[in-house]
Amino acid sequence: MAMVCLSDFEAYAKKYLPKIAWDYFAAGADDCTTRDENILAYKRIRFRPRMLRDVSVMDIRTKILGSEISFPVGIAPTGFHQLAWPDGEKSTARAARAMNTCYIASTYSTCTLEEISAAAPGGLRWFQLYIHRNRAASQELLQRAEALGFQGLVLTADLPYTGKRRDDIRNGFRLPPHMKVKNLEQAFEVCEMSLLDPSVTWNDIYWLRSLTRLPIIIKGILTREDAELAVRHGVQGIIVSNHGGRQLDEGPATIDALVEVVEAVRGRVEVYVDGGIRKGSDVLKALALGAKCVFIGRPAIWGLAYKGEEGLQDVLRILQDEFRLSMALAG
Amino acid sequence: MAMVCLSDFEAYAKKYLPKIAWDYFAAGADDCTTRDENILAYKRIRFRPRMLRDVSVMDIRTKILGSEISFPVGIAPTGFHQLAWPDGEKSTARAARAMNTCYIASTYSTCTLEEISAAAPGGLRWFQLYIHRNRAASQELLQRAEALGFQGLVLTADLPYTGKRRDDIRNGFRLPPHMKVKNLEQAFEVCEMSLLDPSVTWNDIYWLRSLTRLPIIIKGILTREDAELAVRHGVQGIIVSNHGGRQLDEGPATIDALVEVVEAVRGRVEVYVDGGIRKGSDVLKALALGAKCVFIGRPAIWGLAYKGEEGLQDVLRILQDEFRLSMALAG
Amino acid sequence: MAMVCLSDFEAYAKKYLPKIAWDYFAAGADDCTTRDENILAYKRIRFRPRMLRDVSVMDIRTKILGSEISFPVGIAPTGFHQLAWPDGEKSTARAARAMNTCYIASTYSTCTLEEISAAAPGGLRWFQLYIHRNRAASQELLQRAEALGFQGLVLTADLPYTGKRRDDIRNGFRLPPHMKVKNLEQAFEVCEMSLLDPSVTWNDIYWLRSLTRLPIIIKGILTREDAELAVRHGVQGIIVSNHGGRQLDEGPATIDALVEVVEAVRGRVEVYVDGGIRKGSDVLKALALGAKCVFIGRPAIWGLAYKGEEGLQDVLRILQDEFRLSMALAG
Amino acid sequence: MAMVCLSDFEAYAKKYLPKIAWDYFAAGADDCTTRDENILAYKRIRFRPRMLRDVSVMDIRTKILGSEISFPVGIAPTGFHQLAWPDGEKSTARAARAMNTCYIASTYSTCTLEEISAAAPGGLRWFQLYIHRNRAASQELLQRAEALGFQGLVLTADLPYTGKRRDDIRNGFRLPPHMKVKNLEQAFEVCEMSLLDPSVTWNDIYWLRSLTRLPIIIKGILTREDAELAVRHGVQGIIVSNHGGRQLDEGPATIDALVEVVEAVRGRVEVYVDGGIRKGSDVLKALALGAKCVFIGRPAIWGLAYKGEEGLQDVLRILQDEFRLSMALAG
Repeated sequence: MAMVCLSDFEAYAKKYLPKIAWDYFAAGADDCTTRDENILAYKRIRFRPRMLRDVSVMDIRTKILGSEISFPVGIAPTGFHQLAWPDGEKSTARAARAMNTCYIASTYSTCTLEEISAAAPGGLRWFQLYIHRNRAASQELLQRAEALGFQGLVLTADLPYTGKRRDDIRNGFRLPPHMKVKNLEQAFEVCEMSLLDPSVTWNDIYWLRSLTRLPIIIKGILTREDAELAVRHGVQGIIVSNHGGRQLDEGPATIDALVEVVEAVRGRVEVYVDGGIRKGSDVLKALALGAKCVFIGRPAIWGLAYKGEEGLQDVLRILQDEFRLSMALAG
Repeated sequence: MAMVCLSDFEAYAKKYLPKIAWDYFAAGADDCTTRDENILAYKRIRFRPRMLRDVSVMDIRTKILGSEISFPVGIAPTGFHQLAWPDGEKSTARAARAMNTCYIASTYSTCTLEEISAAAPGGLRWFQLYIHRNRAASQELLQRAEALGFQGLVLTADLPYTGKRRDDIRNGFRLPPHMKVKNLEQAFEVCEMSLLDPSVTWNDIYWLRSLTRLPIIIKGILTREDAELAVRHGVQGIIVSNHGGRQLDEGPATIDALVEVVEAVRGRVEVYVDGGIRKGSDVLKALALGAKCVFIGRPAIWGLAYKGEEGLQDVLRILQDEFRLSMALAG
Repeated sequence: MAMVCLSDFEAYAKKYLPKIAWDYFAAGADDCTTRDENILAYKRIRFRPRMLRDVSVMDIRTKILGSEISFPVGIAPTGFHQLAWPDGEKSTARAARAMNTCYIASTYSTCTLEEISAAAPGGLRWFQLYIHRNRAASQELLQRAEALGFQGLVLTADLPYTGKRRDDIRNGFRLPPHMKVKNLEQAFEVCEMSLLDPSVTWNDIYWLRSLTRLPIIIKGILTREDAELAVRHGVQGIIVSNHGGRQLDEGPATIDALVEVVEAVRGRVEVYVDGGIRKGSDVLKALALGAKCVFIGRPAIWGLAYKGEEGLQDVLRILQDEFRLSMALAG
Repeated sequence: MAMVCLSDFEAYAKKYLPKIAWDYFAAGADDCTTRDENILAYKRIRFRPRMLRDVSVMDIRTKILGSEISFPVGIAPTGFHQLAWPDGEKSTARAARAMNTCYIASTYSTCTLEEISAAAPGGLRWFQLYIHRNRAASQELLQRAEALGFQGLVLTADLPYTGKRRDDIRNGFRLPPHMKVKNLEQAFEVCEMSLLDPSVTWNDIYWLRSLTRLPIIIKGILTREDAELAVRHGVQGIIVSNHGGRQLDEGPATIDALVEVVEAVRGRVEVYVDGGIRKGSDVLKALALGAKCVFIGRPAIWGLAYKGEEGLQDVLRILQDEFRLSMALAG
């Protein structure tokens, strides 16, 4: 089976992952409308291709918060990578470094931050944080990340409670006994989403700011109003995201929300987007609409499921080639 | 089989109800366009989710015509509950009381109003009335309901004649011999829809007003013009409804009609809506568009078909949980 | 099998007619887009139902060009009724008279005008005319119709050449040897569509006017420009028609074209419409948009195929009942 | 099997061509969205048919760059005709001459320009050019074409790199050993698309102009901006094209792009269009929207695959008949 495009990796993962793991990664909230809209919305956007421009040399490198990456595609934070590949987040970190791009490690990793750092020293990494009811646990985690050289702090804003993912409920989804949310082992005996704090507000950005010198990126913004609030509360970056359609169903597709967020932000902070990226041309569309960089979630998992870090590199390389070709063909 | 969302109950009911009963409840008029539009129209409405609001405590109680209910979902009037569960409307009444919400009992119940009242004393109930050619029969019925403590009178306005439901005609639908439209046994030897009076007009609201001190709610309004007329004729509430798409096919979806009715009413009376509610987020959309409360029809039947009053409570509890989660995730 | 709605008759006809005959009646030009659009366009039109109006008595009779019919649905001209039922157009004439409505007999009938007249004396009938290259033949035919008491002359304007109906070409469609286009037997040895005159223009209306005292109705108008021309050339009526989608594919649906034709005509002549009527509510929509009456083509054939004149009466009666019910429910 | 419309030829080719050849001709870039949009966009355009015009005599001849063709449909440049029929482009040239229309021979022909010329002396032919990194090779090719009597030079502007056609990658598409890109045999040992020059710009039009007296037609324009540039750089014609959806996916359908190109050009040069033509009525739509002539790509291949030059003539004749009929029926 030739791996030609990202859907080939999706098909592979669907075929070879245990059903419960596939369902977990594939899940969207409720009717999965927003999950699917993320993809459909890209298809509705049309290029106006220009001809006869010299496209013999193209530079696709970019910088995010000052760090150069080889092309504008990073790895979005997703949990439980060991469900996809034995080495879990360590493989993810290695692949990201090999491709010279940014990997946002999730609080809900199945490797510790220390393991992730050790697996790929020198790689560009950000750390994704949920704020727990036990604030001390969150603070400790964040400071470990900073000490380990993570270069950005990504606060996920759209998960005061977990969205309703029907298949996970039907499957009684839980991690297999030999996997753990290792980052939180010390803080909690049992790790459940219900430990997250639903009372978090914009003021907690100030609290985070007081704890770290890392740039703060807020993830989960979908409206101009919240984009304005984010800028005013001093974040350095915004990831337009609907959590892959896993939280509130029937909100906007991220590429549609990107437009209004970019407009509201007016260049004051960097704006990124995740959700629905399946082709290099999607990356080009997101950039044309004002994103500085995109992040991929499920496609990264499919790459891991295919061949660990090598598979994830394949996914990134395909996106890179497609992105470069799209740029050339669009002029 | 895990009962995770309302469609699980629908699938159960379709599988286990006798075909003739399933067809009766599922039926829409003509091509069932409006029945299906009721659902599709909700899907077309998109949230603009807001982040980082304190959603640790949420109060989802509301009041309808002065009575508190535990959350803004009541039971719409539908006929023939014994077709779904042996105890029929008695189970419905018990489930509604257990969940502390409002149940609108139909004229076409298979239990008497007295049986319904006795089954769940103290529950909040309204009585749904059709006006018969034999006005005395309607008057007697209404006064029985008032005497039994029903707290509202719901006049159905959209059934001068019964809509054309093809499957019912094909099946030769009629109640099995051991079931009866018990409320009307005394008044009529044979109970047929043709006993309803197609000459009812707005002036008959005055006639009803003269007969009862109960608040009058009119059900079946779909246009701003009729909403204005309803307010002017002194009703206390309006249920935006198209009878579940069972009357005139190819009219508007109720959630679309709600918008213009709410605009016309300008807060002078309470506005409710039924039809197409399948998820907690649908409830949130209806409320965001101005409804004070929604009512569910077919999903209540599916709950009954699953496990009687227990099944109906399951349905209501799922909606309640989903509604609360949607509120939190939408900020 | 219960015959509940028009699609039941369609299914019956598809099952029991010889494939070559079914294909002939069902055929649309090219990709059948317009044929199908005729139906889809009705579905896109939404009612605004009004409530609490006295609908106990409704008068659904109407007059077309001064003649009363029992309800606003007539029989459009279609050819070769013997392909559907042995008695052919004689049955059609009898059914139309029994239902007290208007039947437009086609030039391409498999019974003579004399047979049609004799089959149902006193019925309201119009005659549909194609203009042949041999003008004398057309003139003779028209004058026979007038002499036989036909009360209107319908000139089909959209068939200078026959549309491309792929299945007819594949099937090598032709009438079986025992059927004939009897009206033209005297005029032509072989009867082919290529005998029609593609050079007909608006001036030929004056020629027709000079030959007959019958009102002239022009069939096949789809634009405001042609509607204006029709009025200026002195016709008494316009049938908005695209020949059931059998001529130019990808023109407008007739119900959409009706709107602009009605607007252009401004009441100066009567406007009718055919194509896509499948339910009584479609009739109501057409009337609400300005048609004086609608005509049915394929559904009449399905009725004939089911049980001859009795089957056609069933079809008409169903439309009548559905039309009356729609009026009541729409208020 | 009767060959009634172009899809019959498509079905034949799909059935009888080797899969690898079928896939090559059918391929679109990425998700094939633009390839399919080319067709769908035609379907969205609606005629406004006019009646009672004298359509007994119609002249469908036209002139392109001064040369008369029998009807406004030519053969677009496509490569590798021997994959469809042993005689390859020689058959194409014969069919085009027999139907008295224009054939644009591709650089990537499997016959030499000399063979093509010899196969159908006197036929109207244009030559399609890619500019190679080895400019001398392109110049030599162009001058051979001019010397052989080709009457126009078509510069393809949308292929700085080859689009990503997934099936070709999966199939490992390459020409079978006995076929060659004969025109380039002398210039290159191995012929690959990577020999094309991605640094071509508008200024290279001046370079081409300096090499030939032939009119230059630019192919691949999709925007008003590029249309304006093309006119300013002195081309004689523009082919609105997206390379059959084989280059950048999710750009505009060509019939949609035609509108803005025609508007920008304001008659200063001739405008043609290719992509998505499947019926004679599509040709009429393109002409109504301002194209002087259309070109067919895949349908020509299907014709060749059916019966070589005879099959291609069938395809052209069907389009011609359908085009004439559409003109008559549209008035």
